[in-house]
Amino acid sequence: MAGSSFGKNFVVTTWGESHGKAVGAVIDGCPAGIELSEEDIQKYLDRRKPGQSDMTTARKEDDKAEILSGVFEGKTTGTPISVMIRNSDQHSADYSNIKDVYRPGHADYTFQKKYGIRDYRGGGRSSGRETVGRVMGGAVAAKILSSLGIKATAYTLSVGDIKAENIDLSMINENPLFMPDNEAAKRAEEYIRECRENNDSVGGVIECRITGMPVGIGETVFDKLDANLAKAMLSIGSVKGFEIGSGFEAAKKNGSENNDPFYADEDGNINKKTNNAGGVLGGMSDGSDIVFRIAVKPTPSIAREQKTVEESYGPDGKPAKKAQDSKIEIKGRHDPVIMPRAVVVAESMAMITIADLLLSGMSSRIDSVVERYTE
Amino acid sequence: MAGSSFGKNFVVTTWGESHGKAVGAVIDGCPAGIELSEEDIQKYLDRRKPGQSDMTTARKEDDKAEILSGVFEGKTTGTPISVMIRNSDQHSADYSNIKDVYRPGHADYTFQKKYGIRDYRGGGRSSGRETVGRVMGGAVAAKILSSLGIKATAYTLSVGDIKAENIDLSMINENPLFMPDNEAAKRAEEYIRECRENNDSVGGVIECRITGMPVGIGETVFDKLDANLAKAMLSIGSVKGFEIGSGFEAAKKNGSENNDPFYADEDGNINKKTNNAGGVLGGMSDGSDIVFRIAVKPTPSIAREQKTVEESYGPDGKPAKKAQDSKIEIKGRHDPVIMPRAVVVAESMAMITIADLLLSGMSSRIDSVVERYTE
Amino acid sequence: MAGSSFGKNFVVTTWGESHGKAVGAVIDGCPAGIELSEEDIQKYLDRRKPGQSDMTTARKEDDKAEILSGVFEGKTTGTPISVMIRNSDQHSADYSNIKDVYRPGHADYTFQKKYGIRDYRGGGRSSGRETVGRVMGGAVAAKILSSLGIKATAYTLSVGDIKAENIDLSMINENPLFMPDNEAAKRAEEYIRECRENNDSVGGVIECRITGMPVGIGETVFDKLDANLAKAMLSIGSVKGFEIGSGFEAAKKNGSENNDPFYADEDGNINKKTNNAGGVLGGMSDGSDIVFRIAVKPTPSIAREQKTVEESYGPDGKPAKKAQDSKIEIKGRHDPVIMPRAVVVAESMAMITIADLLLSGMSSRIDSVVERYTE
Amino acid sequence: MAGSSFGKNFVVTTWGESHGKAVGAVIDGCPAGIELSEEDIQKYLDRRKPGQSDMTTARKEDDKAEILSGVFEGKTTGTPISVMIRNSDQHSADYSNIKDVYRPGHADYTFQKKYGIRDYRGGGRSSGRETVGRVMGGAVAAKILSSLGIKATAYTLSVGDIKAENIDLSMINENPLFMPDNEAAKRAEEYIRECRENNDSVGGVIECRITGMPVGIGETVFDKLDANLAKAMLSIGSVKGFEIGSGFEAAKKNGSENNDPFYADEDGNINKKTNNAGGVLGGMSDGSDIVFRIAVKPTPSIAREQKTVEESYGPDGKPAKKAQDSKIEIKGRHDPVIMPRAVVVAESMAMITIADLLLSGMSSRIDSVVERYTE
Repeated sequence: MAGSSFGKNFVVTTWGESHGKAVGAVIDGCPAGIELSEEDIQKYLDRRKPGQSDMTTARKEDDKAEILSGVFEGKTTGTPISVMIRNSDQHSADYSNIKDVYRPGHADYTFQKKYGIRDYRGGGRSSGRETVGRVMGGAVAAKILSSLGIKATAYTLSVGDIKAENIDLSMINENPLFMPDNEAAKRAEEYIRECRENNDSVGGVIECRITGMPVGIGETVFDKLDANLAKAMLSIGSVKGFEIGSGFEAAKKNGSENNDPFYADEDGNINKKTNNAGGVLGGMSDGSDIVFRIAVKPTPSIAREQKTVEESYGPDGKPAKKAQDSKIEIKGRHDPVIMPRAVVVAESMAMITIADLLLSGMSSRIDSVVERYTE
Repeated sequence: MAGSSFGKNFVVTTWGESHGKAVGAVIDGCPAGIELSEEDIQKYLDRRKPGQSDMTTARKEDDKAEILSGVFEGKTTGTPISVMIRNSDQHSADYSNIKDVYRPGHADYTFQKKYGIRDYRGGGRSSGRETVGRVMGGAVAAKILSSLGIKATAYTLSVGDIKAENIDLSMINENPLFMPDNEAAKRAEEYIRECRENNDSVGGVIECRITGMPVGIGETVFDKLDANLAKAMLSIGSVKGFEIGSGFEAAKKNGSENNDPFYADEDGNINKKTNNAGGVLGGMSDGSDIVFRIAVKPTPSIAREQKTVEESYGPDGKPAKKAQDSKIEIKGRHDPVIMPRAVVVAESMAMITIADLLLSGMSSRIDSVVERYTE
Repeated sequence: MAGSSFGKNFVVTTWGESHGKAVGAVIDGCPAGIELSEEDIQKYLDRRKPGQSDMTTARKEDDKAEILSGVFEGKTTGTPISVMIRNSDQHSADYSNIKDVYRPGHADYTFQKKYGIRDYRGGGRSSGRETVGRVMGGAVAAKILSSLGIKATAYTLSVGDIKAENIDLSMINENPLFMPDNEAAKRAEEYIRECRENNDSVGGVIECRITGMPVGIGETVFDKLDANLAKAMLSIGSVKGFEIGSGFEAAKKNGSENNDPFYADEDGNINKKTNNAGGVLGGMSDGSDIVFRIAVKPTPSIAREQKTVEESYGPDGKPAKKAQDSKIEIKGRHDPVIMPRAVVVAESMAMITIADLLLSGMSSRIDSVVERYTE
Repeated sequence: MAGSSFGKNFVVTTWGESHGKAVGAVIDGCPAGIELSEEDIQKYLDRRKPGQSDMTTARKEDDKAEILSGVFEGKTTGTPISVMIRNSDQHSADYSNIKDVYRPGHADYTFQKKYGIRDYRGGGRSSGRETVGRVMGGAVAAKILSSLGIKATAYTLSVGDIKAENIDLSMINENPLFMPDNEAAKRAEEYIRECRENNDSVGGVIECRITGMPVGIGETVFDKLDANLAKAMLSIGSVKGFEIGSGFEAAKKNGSENNDPFYADEDGNINKKTNNAGGVLGGMSDGSDIVFRIAVKPTPSIAREQKTVEESYGPDGKPAKKAQDSKIEIKGRHDPVIMPRAVVVAESMAMITIADLLLSGMSSRIDSVVERYTE
């Protein structure tokens, strides 16, 4: 099955493996007439770059995005936008120690069983490297959204038990964890260093907030805005949960608390007094901010010894000998937390989702159709 | 946009409104040769029927499913299976009090703004009535899964703050809340009665467990098993959150705790010692049970007075007068909790998701393709 | 695989077999606010009804379409429109003579081999009866198109060697073959009666003309307007060819003849002097009439004896005994020509195709997107 | 709308313009375990290369395909295969003479109207250059098909009025027109030179034959094998018609002639005595060869003066001045016939179509599903 595309009318297809020649995305269905440059995309890619602080791996990735199609004289033409980054020269490392061993918390085992073959040099398509293509797509989606005054902002809400308390979005870029609370960020950094010294990692929560939404984006049954956001988020590796608005708290509440009363201002504009809904009613945006959170698991690659199994395969793709218990220590430098680099990925997937539903919703009324095609 | 279909190779399309003539589903892509009767479907539909206890509305729905196509001499033929239920005669109730008032927590407002028209007699497509079609699809999916020894079981995990503690799946059908802990169920029932007396409602959590999974179901990037499950769940009205395995708890954990070590038994079969992953690694099933939870909000229809706005529309679909503040008391009998009737809906959507990915994954290896087409 | 849906944003899903309980369609993605009644649909269905003349089978079908969802107070609501027709009571005919024999020119053989089971009482999904759902979808598409001043008109261009020469579209409904040339129609009727007396049938060509097209409908690469029309047409049983504009004649021409020169009128409106393109340039409508033709094979059901094979199957879906040569005479009354009843089917599929591409094309420019969502 | 992808389970997405930086394809859904090298792809690309004889333009394209992902240690991994070719350095030619003038028979006009912007330096996505991506996809599809013993062979059947008479497939590669009749090819070459001297071009017919088909490939209603082939073919620029089996000839025939009688051989294998069906019954392959033909229009780019209009656009995408009559002479060297280079494109699209339906058809029977997932 072909599972590398996301969206229906604004479609992002990603390709490429961590240890392959290149990674990239094809973005199809982008409206014509949008100003788009490589800098627009690079800006987003730079936010997921490692090595910006000691909160992420020191590995150097000198990613430079190249737009190969779909843009003419600085504007999108309505044709597919192909963007690519060459992977840095892969030094011929010795992978023999992980070739036949499944890393716990990784997709090595499932990949091998599904396909009978896997690129054992890294996570392949299950590597975080794949998200480069998502960020490329997100950067293009951002241009569509900004034309409509819509803006998505993701940030780290918590690291382990340490939570941003006094949320101030202006602080997000002031600390390496992208937390909207510098003080909490400081404590979190401390804790992360501690984890790393213990050859361990830690999880956290990312929150995303989308402002400027028109009412009615999202379809009423299966392609609900929140359903598509949930899929978008869980499609990011390491994400184990999604909640919108009051989320899992809603499960403990009474209806009288959880319902958001409507009110009208003097001009007759309708709004909600609270936003337990998280900006979505019946799968459609209600004009309030979209607010959702995702649970990110701790980095599975840790330096301490872990129990696992080893199993080797012959050239015919069949197991060469019976699996047996083994141990593994994952070498190399790995991010002790995933959030800092995943923030822009979550934001990107959110923007792609919104852009797709915006374009898909153009024809909800016959009046709009008539207006579009007659002058 | 057409948003009433779910799935890629096993596609369930639902149609019908709460106050329309009928509701139903078209199930396309079901393999031929499966024994299927109306009883197979009715069995599932009966589980979402109201009036089975005082935990749900006393409204009577005498739903009888009729299979209209796709089955011949008791077996599926590989062609679309159309299933339908006529809605009971709609008594010409007086809807004037809700025609121009948006119910908080419902989709009235967003529906009106998106389409410029809405069936004000009920939730229309956003009504729980729409889920009848999902359960029809789930019943067919269940037949596919059972051919492979796969079984999904959903149940109410908690109601408000009351949680099933000593999980015993054999108890699920012994209490009207479908909780796997009769003692907790008793306390929950008590609490629900209290809520209802206060003209209020309460939320809860549903858990679903899928056993017998082969390894490798789900695609590696966007159509991950957990991503598609998340979409399936959030597409159910009133669901505000989804988590798989350790879920939001993973966000607080260290990698050394959260990683599930692999081990091999004497025959070389590989398994995991723990299941924080919830049965999915890299978006593909890992052979352990799939375990996920969803947050269900409290029923938004409550009998107490709520603040809202009113706004009336002319025959041209344009607002006839400026919106202004108003109040609403939602009459009629409504479920004080959604979980008991949503349990089978969640289970159905889970089965549809798995069935779709099972069929979609048939061609992951060229060997399987060759085997399928040559004798 | 699920292959019963057509379209991307305006999606028609048909279901039902010739000898099942009912046939129908679910039409999803129809914009809200369109006036739609059962009469609007019935009008189209009546055009494919048999027994209107001796040119079609005398079989009586008293098809009455029932709209089950998606329409409220006479208008579409943007939700899926479910339409159904009960099949007349199936008299328990004796099918034992065709149960194990494959009718030449029919799908009996391929159906049996693909699915291991088939409804041997008729063509099942391969029966012309399936086209009822297409006509339902076409009737709804027609309402969208007429809002934009677009109109499709299909007619029989030729029967065997007899071709309409002096095309006069006003004559289409004046003869039972729906030919735009009453004189040719008379000769064709004569010939058809002759074929029938010989227990034979005859093929023909249907032409379709679509007026009022805006420029730019259709996508530039795979979803070209003409590509989607070709698929739509070949998806109709018995259609063996499709050509647009000069079609197969273009293969014999020189570029200087086949190119259509552009010209501008006094107001600067652009037009083409000729229409060899058939109204499509680069897969997009060019504002000229869309003109295409399809080849319809002679009805495969003929009363004369034909050579074939017989093969019987056990309850396990495996052949019970080796296939061997046999003979068949197809009893019952069958249309000696397919065109009269296929005209409305071709027209319907054309309208569905255009409607889908119209809605899909709404977001080709960012200006239109901005206009749609801002006031 | 995103219209650059073809297929449902084997999906080919093409990107890139004639005068952009590169062209390429992403091939998603390819089963794992297939040996695939750049040479496998290059072999097909070389067949569409210009300048191999005086039958095509002398323009030099030194196309070297690079596989960027999806292949590991020489085998497909089940992940998307990205293939790319850099366009040769675009000399900064002077395009001012065609910037504001619409070339007859080209998509300049429709492109401008749909998107409000176009790459006026060439056909952009409507250029034949886009077909490079299709051939890449076809080369991968060919590997899947050959695993099953399926082979597609396309060739030029006629040029203008000159038709291959004594079809001998072994001759296809013996003449620059890829005709299966060297003698006819010689006459055709002569005629083409004549056309070119007259600053003119000529059309023709391509035929494609697919051998080794299993029975039952294709879906019964909309995704019929012939319907998808028709779409695939009409999606190729310059193709104006498609017919399968007896095609448009069927429209003139009687049923008794056109029906193909079945017969059984001694082993009970079923076959057809004739193949008017072209290998497809009810949309599913019947085991006979698939045989279809397409009509290719004469190259629209001709050196003689043609009438057209000119229209200029301001930077805002709006017409800067009223369109008015004009003339154009298309400079540069263009293929006087499209067939020689389109043969491999048609063959490629046919193979992609078949591969997609093969993979999609894996789950037509529950037995196959059970077999696939249990050992």
